[in-house]
Amino acid sequence: MIMSGEKYWGFIKDPIHGYIRITSSEKRIIDTRPVQRLRRIRQLGPGAEYVYPGANHTRFEHSLGCLYLGGVLAESLPVGLSRKEVREVRIAALLHDVGHGPFSHVFEPLLNRCTGKTHEDMTEWVIEKSELAEILTTEGYEVDRIKSMAVGRSKTKRIFLNQIIRSTVDVDKMDFLIRDSYHTGAEYGPIDIFRLIYTMDVLNSNLAVDLTALPTLEAFVIARIGAFRAVYFHRTVRAFQIMLEKALRIANEEMGFVDIHSKDDYLDLDDYSMWTLLRKCEKSRDIVRDLERRKLLKCSFEGCFFIKDSLTTSLLTNETIRQRLGEQIAERAGLDKEQVILDVPSVPSVPYYHSLSTEPMEIPVFYKRRDGQRIPMKLSEVSRIIEPLQAFMNIVRVYTDSMNREKVSKSAREVLSDLPISTEVSY
Amino acid sequence: MIMSGEKYWGFIKDPIHGYIRITSSEKRIIDTRPVQRLRRIRQLGPGAEYVYPGANHTRFEHSLGCLYLGGVLAESLPVGLSRKEVREVRIAALLHDVGHGPFSHVFEPLLNRCTGKTHEDMTEWVIEKSELAEILTTEGYEVDRIKSMAVGRSKTKRIFLNQIIRSTVDVDKMDFLIRDSYHTGAEYGPIDIFRLIYTMDVLNSNLAVDLTALPTLEAFVIARIGAFRAVYFHRTVRAFQIMLEKALRIANEEMGFVDIHSKDDYLDLDDYSMWTLLRKCEKSRDIVRDLERRKLLKCSFEGCFFIKDSLTTSLLTNETIRQRLGEQIAERAGLDKEQVILDVPSVPSVPYYHSLSTEPMEIPVFYKRRDGQRIPMKLSEVSRIIEPLQAFMNIVRVYTDSMNREKVSKSAREVLSDLPISTEVSY
Amino acid sequence: MIMSGEKYWGFIKDPIHGYIRITSSEKRIIDTRPVQRLRRIRQLGPGAEYVYPGANHTRFEHSLGCLYLGGVLAESLPVGLSRKEVREVRIAALLHDVGHGPFSHVFEPLLNRCTGKTHEDMTEWVIEKSELAEILTTEGYEVDRIKSMAVGRSKTKRIFLNQIIRSTVDVDKMDFLIRDSYHTGAEYGPIDIFRLIYTMDVLNSNLAVDLTALPTLEAFVIARIGAFRAVYFHRTVRAFQIMLEKALRIANEEMGFVDIHSKDDYLDLDDYSMWTLLRKCEKSRDIVRDLERRKLLKCSFEGCFFIKDSLTTSLLTNETIRQRLGEQIAERAGLDKEQVILDVPSVPSVPYYHSLSTEPMEIPVFYKRRDGQRIPMKLSEVSRIIEPLQAFMNIVRVYTDSMNREKVSKSAREVLSDLPISTEVSY
Amino acid sequence: MIMSGEKYWGFIKDPIHGYIRITSSEKRIIDTRPVQRLRRIRQLGPGAEYVYPGANHTRFEHSLGCLYLGGVLAESLPVGLSRKEVREVRIAALLHDVGHGPFSHVFEPLLNRCTGKTHEDMTEWVIEKSELAEILTTEGYEVDRIKSMAVGRSKTKRIFLNQIIRSTVDVDKMDFLIRDSYHTGAEYGPIDIFRLIYTMDVLNSNLAVDLTALPTLEAFVIARIGAFRAVYFHRTVRAFQIMLEKALRIANEEMGFVDIHSKDDYLDLDDYSMWTLLRKCEKSRDIVRDLERRKLLKCSFEGCFFIKDSLTTSLLTNETIRQRLGEQIAERAGLDKEQVILDVPSVPSVPYYHSLSTEPMEIPVFYKRRDGQRIPMKLSEVSRIIEPLQAFMNIVRVYTDSMNREKVSKSAREVLSDLPISTEVSY
Repeated sequence: MIMSGEKYWGFIKDPIHGYIRITSSEKRIIDTRPVQRLRRIRQLGPGAEYVYPGANHTRFEHSLGCLYLGGVLAESLPVGLSRKEVREVRIAALLHDVGHGPFSHVFEPLLNRCTGKTHEDMTEWVIEKSELAEILTTEGYEVDRIKSMAVGRSKTKRIFLNQIIRSTVDVDKMDFLIRDSYHTGAEYGPIDIFRLIYTMDVLNSNLAVDLTALPTLEAFVIARIGAFRAVYFHRTVRAFQIMLEKALRIANEEMGFVDIHSKDDYLDLDDYSMWTLLRKCEKSRDIVRDLERRKLLKCSFEGCFFIKDSLTTSLLTNETIRQRLGEQIAERAGLDKEQVILDVPSVPSVPYYHSLSTEPMEIPVFYKRRDGQRIPMKLSEVSRIIEPLQAFMNIVRVYTDSMNREKVSKSAREVLSDLPISTEVSY
Repeated sequence: MIMSGEKYWGFIKDPIHGYIRITSSEKRIIDTRPVQRLRRIRQLGPGAEYVYPGANHTRFEHSLGCLYLGGVLAESLPVGLSRKEVREVRIAALLHDVGHGPFSHVFEPLLNRCTGKTHEDMTEWVIEKSELAEILTTEGYEVDRIKSMAVGRSKTKRIFLNQIIRSTVDVDKMDFLIRDSYHTGAEYGPIDIFRLIYTMDVLNSNLAVDLTALPTLEAFVIARIGAFRAVYFHRTVRAFQIMLEKALRIANEEMGFVDIHSKDDYLDLDDYSMWTLLRKCEKSRDIVRDLERRKLLKCSFEGCFFIKDSLTTSLLTNETIRQRLGEQIAERAGLDKEQVILDVPSVPSVPYYHSLSTEPMEIPVFYKRRDGQRIPMKLSEVSRIIEPLQAFMNIVRVYTDSMNREKVSKSAREVLSDLPISTEVSY
Repeated sequence: MIMSGEKYWGFIKDPIHGYIRITSSEKRIIDTRPVQRLRRIRQLGPGAEYVYPGANHTRFEHSLGCLYLGGVLAESLPVGLSRKEVREVRIAALLHDVGHGPFSHVFEPLLNRCTGKTHEDMTEWVIEKSELAEILTTEGYEVDRIKSMAVGRSKTKRIFLNQIIRSTVDVDKMDFLIRDSYHTGAEYGPIDIFRLIYTMDVLNSNLAVDLTALPTLEAFVIARIGAFRAVYFHRTVRAFQIMLEKALRIANEEMGFVDIHSKDDYLDLDDYSMWTLLRKCEKSRDIVRDLERRKLLKCSFEGCFFIKDSLTTSLLTNETIRQRLGEQIAERAGLDKEQVILDVPSVPSVPYYHSLSTEPMEIPVFYKRRDGQRIPMKLSEVSRIIEPLQAFMNIVRVYTDSMNREKVSKSAREVLSDLPISTEVSY
Repeated sequence: MIMSGEKYWGFIKDPIHGYIRITSSEKRIIDTRPVQRLRRIRQLGPGAEYVYPGANHTRFEHSLGCLYLGGVLAESLPVGLSRKEVREVRIAALLHDVGHGPFSHVFEPLLNRCTGKTHEDMTEWVIEKSELAEILTTEGYEVDRIKSMAVGRSKTKRIFLNQIIRSTVDVDKMDFLIRDSYHTGAEYGPIDIFRLIYTMDVLNSNLAVDLTALPTLEAFVIARIGAFRAVYFHRTVRAFQIMLEKALRIANEEMGFVDIHSKDDYLDLDDYSMWTLLRKCEKSRDIVRDLERRKLLKCSFEGCFFIKDSLTTSLLTNETIRQRLGEQIAERAGLDKEQVILDVPSVPSVPYYHSLSTEPMEIPVFYKRRDGQRIPMKLSEVSRIIEPLQAFMNIVRVYTDSMNREKVSKSAREVLSDLPISTEVSY
């Protein structure tokens, strides 16, 4: 936990990890505008607080948590990291979220559409263009290396350095799973993250988990899916986010706030300023008025399709087809197409959607023989629950306003009846 | 926990109290703009998050916690409350904070100066003038009774109903002490609030605590002072708040946002919109720029004066004298008077300052004889720690910017040397 | 939470559930020797404390927890229970474990063999024969009804009353899963038991869970399996228990303590007296000497067989065949048959083994239509993880002492190679 | 947290401190009979579990906690400890309790009377005479140094090494305050022990606390007194312990188990064997029968005397005078002298009684000047609550059986009326 040779500034008290010791260099990097701005960007959403009133924690405290866990993992890996690498991992973990826009993932579809960028691209851009670049250099960090490591794209041969910050069992996920559970009160956890950390090793340059921690690893995957169901893709949370995404889209048509020319413009955007803007903007004002009274869209249909049916999956993750299905449902219900939204986990505004759909199988595990040799194994061969767990995210929902609930429910059942959708739930 | 005869809407999950069951009536009241607005007013400050990054919880979740605890206490009091009274206590507890301005107590001095009102006055005003009045009536509540009970001023003979919401051991304090500790990570608690609740009774129409819970009551007082020292009057938290208070004051000179003519104007003010405004306003912009980089005022002097010396106390709590002392210190240090701030716990921007200075002695306790009779006692006679505990809040500090720290430190020691101030700490 | 009309004695403070309110009648039943004796019978094992030093909680506090949860569930079921039924459920839950012998499940195989009884039979016997019978009668309970309800065998038509205490989602399991996690520190939980409780209902006289709580129900099943792997069937815990079971068996040959003629003889047996006896008894003394220095058997082989292969399953759960396999392994390794133990989860000394093997599929769930009608569903049809989860308990292990570890490992691999055992792990 | 150069065996999971990493040497020392025996000696009492059913944790897990905290403190002290010293502190902390008899402090008065020894003397004796001596030597420890450091009597010039294990803010107290609160559920804590640890330093060879942690230090003292009132000297806990102490005394008259000739005899004594013995022994059998049904002595009188009145204090702490007062009360009530017990906190069976009466004032604190120099200060001068807190332990109680409660209550009031005793509480 202690980096010898570094000058420590002091401790920051975190409700999750207790006292986090930081160096004077780190303190100066924390006290920059791009990092401090994360105090005004909520970790969950927003929308989660409409189901869990306690869910008001921010990306700032999460980033400190990542710095801490990144350091613990970096120092405990049996492969041995240099002091320089430990320093880098801590700072890269701290900065991994500085590119997020207001409302995080809810802002992302708009960002993608207008600029072709993801929040990871923005993270690299912010680190390079803001006051961060100068201070990183002053404190002895290489800007290029830090910015790419922060998003898991560093060109190092020691690719596990990237994976500490961005992979299927990275410190980012470890921190947010525990932190989200703590502040929401949603009891899908806890995961024994220190058991994971203390049993991790590096195998062929990749992070891997010792098979003795298999139950903990499975619990980690289960907790992620639990968090997905209880929080990130919760029916009501999504209702809020769909409305907010629309408000952002139409307000941007009027105000053009995504035409970002300087990093200052971008750093001015945060949850506070954006909500204020959406409330004032004529086009989005009505949506905000509803959100401020918790008048939300209603879910009229919810179904679960089988993952093995890749056709269905691709249909539903294809934006064009998804929109067409939505339009068919609207038409059949005698409604305007804007009044019906078909929601699946693969839209960019669902946090972690891509990782959920692709990652769980890829966690490398190894078995340590009595002679010390480590044999790589496939998680899917040693665990029988990983595969069925994938089914959890194949959800399709249809939203509309409360007045049209019944009509849309009926219409959605008819339109979607051809798809292999099971456990249909109508409201 | 269950109010028979009421129609329940469902549960809200709270990280502190678990599942909070609410009725359909309560749901409709919660889903109004004045209550939902509390989601955008932080419970602590702000400023607390500059010391405890996790301190981002809001008055919304705290208000739900008060509804819950108010109900539990109302139902467990041996004196017996009618179903109507239990309903009223829950709603009054829910609404007790709706009058808070942005940044809560930091806004209060400005509010006082411009309008002569406290946030309690505003709570009554908001309940009466906003959509709350109509919905309360529809749901069968008496608006006048609820609005006055919410601020502890109801004209009932059963004055303990007011005291459940506002007194030295009210559910407001019970909830925020536990909630603040949970989200900050500051370990001054926990207090065994259910032991307090289950041993409370009514004596001559007043709430009182059974002497068997004396250790718990003392722990409650100790926790309040612990919270005061660790959070509410923390040196760095105050530095932030003093700067923000100034930003509000000078921005208001330019923008006049406290000239509130309608409750809509007032409800538009929240942490989000006010921060955005302060950032744009020319006068306050520089302060916000510093705050967004955590460049804070520094404490140059801290002393503790004896409470028994009432002259000193009154001197320091008198605004005029306090300002004059600040000016003397500035002058002697060769600085402008604006550059030196003398801070004491009795300024209105310190949450709960008035209650801390006056209340601890007044908690009524009783001793239950074997024959069942309850004998009222004075807390100060049965507890030997209540009185000395008062000393904790007699703190005086002098702030200035980091450049002038040494000069002001020296000057403050000289100017304040005539006062009976002990344990002087210079920086 | 409050049973109107009952006289309350007061509260008992529990680290899990907080203040548990109990009536004067309940207090008198708690203060009998059969209930107080549970203070000297540990909840877990023993053996769990050899892996988790904190695992020293007892069946006494667990029994109070069951009384509490039993009461909460009884009062919240929408079907409506009479006051008499709520009283009965609480007392039956309190008494459900009074028949346990010393070291609980480790004692059970010996009890079965010598007397043909299970601990449930003993519970009924103790309630009927001890001072409990008289005091139950005095306090207005029907002894016959309580004793059979305590083991889930009450002849009531309202069979959900039995199921509150003994079924796949009973308050017994809810309490011990949370309590075991708390005291061990093993992080397989927590489960949101109050969400389960508040969404439970009665369908055709059976307890059933609302489909909206499906994720919570799955988490409950996952937590049980997590507890099984991390605690109940942990490799080291089992090593301890196998040795203790042997010590009990051979000491009984010398001392005959299971020839129980009176309930007083039986109630004299607890963890304290039995350990003292085993330490003194010549035959078992050496085993105790090893246990008191943590010299444990070593696991030489561990494999996982497929559940669908019912032949293998039945082979391994058949005691005769299991012993024969063990003897073959011993013989091939050139050892005495006593020196090799083949361990599977289905032996009676593994807590909850029978429930794990048979129950998970049987949890009834229902879907509530908008018109209020409840449609029964099969859990296996709505959940895709229930079935694969079964695989977790198909473990077979071979133990021997540390000197013969290698030999037995080799021999076990050879003998068991014909069985469809996967993920073989040799040491 | 990591001792470079040591070979680590692995982790032990503790519910309080999480994963405790231990070396192979430490593992071998932990796996000796004197250390493993602590699994059968409860941390609290016994008696505490009669008020807090969850209070079943043992001195074994507490000892591991002390090893852990001792290591953390040893590694974080700015004065710098050698690797050898860190090793020693950890092992000495682990072994500090190995000399405790069955029922810990309840056994102590008998031990004192029969052998003239305290449990600290026995700790040194056990370390020297048992298998510990050999294994310590093998693993490279100096037996003499470890045994004396374990009881805070090492002859080192670096006396802070002793103080880490035994002083007013030692790791022993830090661990048990938190652990006792966790397992009992008594909410007098938590204390922010890591803030204490991280702000501790060495001043003139003594451990001292930085003044910036004054609130934490005060909270630590307050928590100790809270624990004293809520647990260690709880009225009912003492009733149990007084009865048990008597049972031990009279059973020893019959059986002579304190005539200990070998360390094996002594190590055979633990909570398990002693309870079994007391139950069988003819003289103590009746007391055990009552304890096993929770028939306890009743407190007939409780008063609080002023500490400043040193005459009263000395009277009550003088065993002869205390007994004489008890006899007077008995005589006046017409009872046998055995039927009345006068209980004060200064009897040896109250855990930590001596430390409570003498220590709080002596905690050294220092103030660090801006130039780095540390100025020693007296805690009583900087804290105003330390002194009044002393009043908490000046309690005198009179116990008798439930039948004679009224008589003894009256008689005690009369006999003790001459003493300056306040807040008299009669039952």
